[in-house]
Amino acid sequence: MATFIQPKILKGFRDFLPSGEIPRRCLIERIEGCFRSFGFVPIDTPALEYAEILLGKGGGETEKQIYRFKDNGERDVALRFDLTVPFARFIAEHRSELPLPFKRYHIAKVWRGENTQRGRYREFTQCDFDIVGSDSPAADFEVILMMRHTLKAIGAGDVTIRINHRGLFNRFLSNLGVQEKSREILRTVDKLGKIGPEETLRLLSESAGNKAEEILAFIKVQGSFEEILQTITQASGGDSPESQRLWLIRRFMIDTGTADSFVLDPSITRGLDYYTGIVYETFLNDLPDIGSVCSGGRYDNLTGLYSKETICGVGSSIGLDRLIAGLEALGKLEAKLTYSKVGIACIHEGAIGLYQVLAGKLREAGIPCEVFLEEGKLTKQFELAEKKGAQWLIIPGTEPLTDPLTLRDLKKRKNQEGLSWEEIIPILLY
Amino acid sequence: MATFIQPKILKGFRDFLPSGEIPRRCLIERIEGCFRSFGFVPIDTPALEYAEILLGKGGGETEKQIYRFKDNGERDVALRFDLTVPFARFIAEHRSELPLPFKRYHIAKVWRGENTQRGRYREFTQCDFDIVGSDSPAADFEVILMMRHTLKAIGAGDVTIRINHRGLFNRFLSNLGVQEKSREILRTVDKLGKIGPEETLRLLSESAGNKAEEILAFIKVQGSFEEILQTITQASGGDSPESQRLWLIRRFMIDTGTADSFVLDPSITRGLDYYTGIVYETFLNDLPDIGSVCSGGRYDNLTGLYSKETICGVGSSIGLDRLIAGLEALGKLEAKLTYSKVGIACIHEGAIGLYQVLAGKLREAGIPCEVFLEEGKLTKQFELAEKKGAQWLIIPGTEPLTDPLTLRDLKKRKNQEGLSWEEIIPILLY
Repeated sequence: MATFIQPKILKGFRDFLPSGEIPRRCLIERIEGCFRSFGFVPIDTPALEYAEILLGKGGGETEKQIYRFKDNGERDVALRFDLTVPFARFIAEHRSELPLPFKRYHIAKVWRGENTQRGRYREFTQCDFDIVGSDSPAADFEVILMMRHTLKAIGAGDVTIRINHRGLFNRFLSNLGVQEKSREILRTVDKLGKIGPEETLRLLSESAGNKAEEILAFIKVQGSFEEILQTITQASGGDSPESQRLWLIRRFMIDTGTADSFVLDPSITRGLDYYTGIVYETFLNDLPDIGSVCSGGRYDNLTGLYSKETICGVGSSIGLDRLIAGLEALGKLEAKLTYSKVGIACIHEGAIGLYQVLAGKLREAGIPCEVFLEEGKLTKQFELAEKKGAQWLIIPGTEPLTDPLTLRDLKKRKNQEGLSWEEIIPILLY
Repeated sequence: MATFIQPKILKGFRDFLPSGEIPRRCLIERIEGCFRSFGFVPIDTPALEYAEILLGKGGGETEKQIYRFKDNGERDVALRFDLTVPFARFIAEHRSELPLPFKRYHIAKVWRGENTQRGRYREFTQCDFDIVGSDSPAADFEVILMMRHTLKAIGAGDVTIRINHRGLFNRFLSNLGVQEKSREILRTVDKLGKIGPEETLRLLSESAGNKAEEILAFIKVQGSFEEILQTITQASGGDSPESQRLWLIRRFMIDTGTADSFVLDPSITRGLDYYTGIVYETFLNDLPDIGSVCSGGRYDNLTGLYSKETICGVGSSIGLDRLIAGLEALGKLEAKLTYSKVGIACIHEGAIGLYQVLAGKLREAGIPCEVFLEEGKLTKQFELAEKKGAQWLIIPGTEPLTDPLTLRDLKKRKNQEGLSWEEIIPILLY
């Protein structure tokens, strides 16, 4: 008796059937279309790199989650766990070959051996975009403008982008005299949304002592963008390059008619240490509870691990899985089983060459067309066409190129008879 | 003194800068466009799988080249080394969820720890397409027709697809009484092109004794498709289902007006054991020496390792790296540094919001447009625009939306002055 290997995949990994893969692709292609229209260009880097490159000076959580092993040449290698570290290495290595400022995007798989119980995957797609080599507020603004534009373009509706400035927050902490605790304070502030103000206050007291209340008041300031900016400027010791930058960015928002989409939110800090300038998170107005679908910020030293030359930048990352879940909940994810618009029924196998000629005429007119390959009853072919998700089916005659054709609308289950292929093309195109 | 990690990548792995990545993407997108227009749909599978799944019953060369390791949960895992084995596993697992015949394509990275000296990469992209669940000659024909169509559509010019039928070859060997040596004989025959007829004959004598000359004569038969088919039909004991199938496929070629692209070549056998029906290799007429850019064949039991249910199919794989090298040699690979058609010079940083409004008007008209983010001399901005590969640059006035604009043709280095944005759009579109 033959023994079989059970066909199964690793926990936390996924197969994508066409029903899942086509909507993913449609979404990614639309996102890429937006990026490209802003002048962002794609790069790619290896999935596998030296572990030393990816881990840098080592980092607790990452080290535990990374897929790391010795290759056949005994090299210490690992699968990338994000696209930021490879991008830093890429810029350090290729800086002289790239025109700066450099606007890049990178959409690719990454791998983390995470706990899968929280609905997390061990293989997932990241979608990053950055502008490096420019410290200009124009770059800060372009990244958040493109986020807003892209989310609208894919049908996610109106968004709220909550922004803040890490530098301004640090000025505020210096002003309070607690700057040496800034790391712990930032981490706590970042949790406000999750743990609520009371618990935040308790944790802040641990690091900032009697300044905790002032910090809480700072991060909870209410009002318009302008009012909040005035208040936090004051609290951070008055006018500064950071507050000036926010005023300028605000002007760009007003000039582009996008001001309503942006909220100044001093509680947004983004936990990551490497952000130094503006930081932001993006929420869907129709579905705020799923959390931020696109976040990022400005950093002043991307390549610090690899080179003494510093390079600054500003960037963002779309959480694709979360966004897909959101679009699905909103009914805005294109459900599509095929790219083909029309099928050609197989009445007689010997006529396959002629069916392909007929299909070729439709394809040339820009209509994707699938030839059915197996003879069978018409009812069977209708069934197959519906399963495949086609909208239309052509039923050819004995002479497919000259006999009149029947065009079936598979949704309405209605036939139009006596058509030529020239007559069918405009029906399918419009 | 700070120590830095040297930014470097593993041997056999590649970074893709925009100058390499954009042409790759353009090519892949055009290939996908063709596949989709024939009704083929995309799937995706994990990069990492159980080693047992990928290695099956173990296979010498593969086992040595595969990236295999224990994950953090002590599972024996490996990176996929091709897309065929994961596809077999995928079909065994999801068969009941898919409408058959199922036409899929899969374009994705695979990893092999190969010797890099022969110009091979350890990470490369495979591009596979298959029709499974149909034994029809219509499926055989569709795969080779789509190969021809796709290679023409991407600008590779005329192709010659050399086809053969493994079943017919086996009949011939049975007829000669050497069928039990068919494996060794097939392997030898496959080398004819590389080692020449004399060495082939010597090797054939080792496995087929005094039948070697007859085998060599069989694989070297000359003539038209029809003449060769007649000769090899005779040599394999007369008319058979295999010869019938080839006659039918020939008829499809004639009906579609593609007969000139196909050659019946009894020396094509494809080394892989699992092919059982037609097999084929594809050569660029303008560059035959680079070898086959697209090969494959029919198999009768894709999922044999995982299930007792058999499923047949026919498929093919494009060697993307080889094809890119070929297109480059032919001057047919699109050289492109950016998707953006026009830049907007940054005359005054404070006007960035208005530049973005202007850019938005062009983007809405379908013109990708990049806003330059840093103030600087116009000559510097011309330089940057040229480095970025833009064709045009807009030089805005003090009031970007109302003052007349200057449009610079960066190739001709000529300016057109006094234009409105409405006047610029048709210039850039056509």
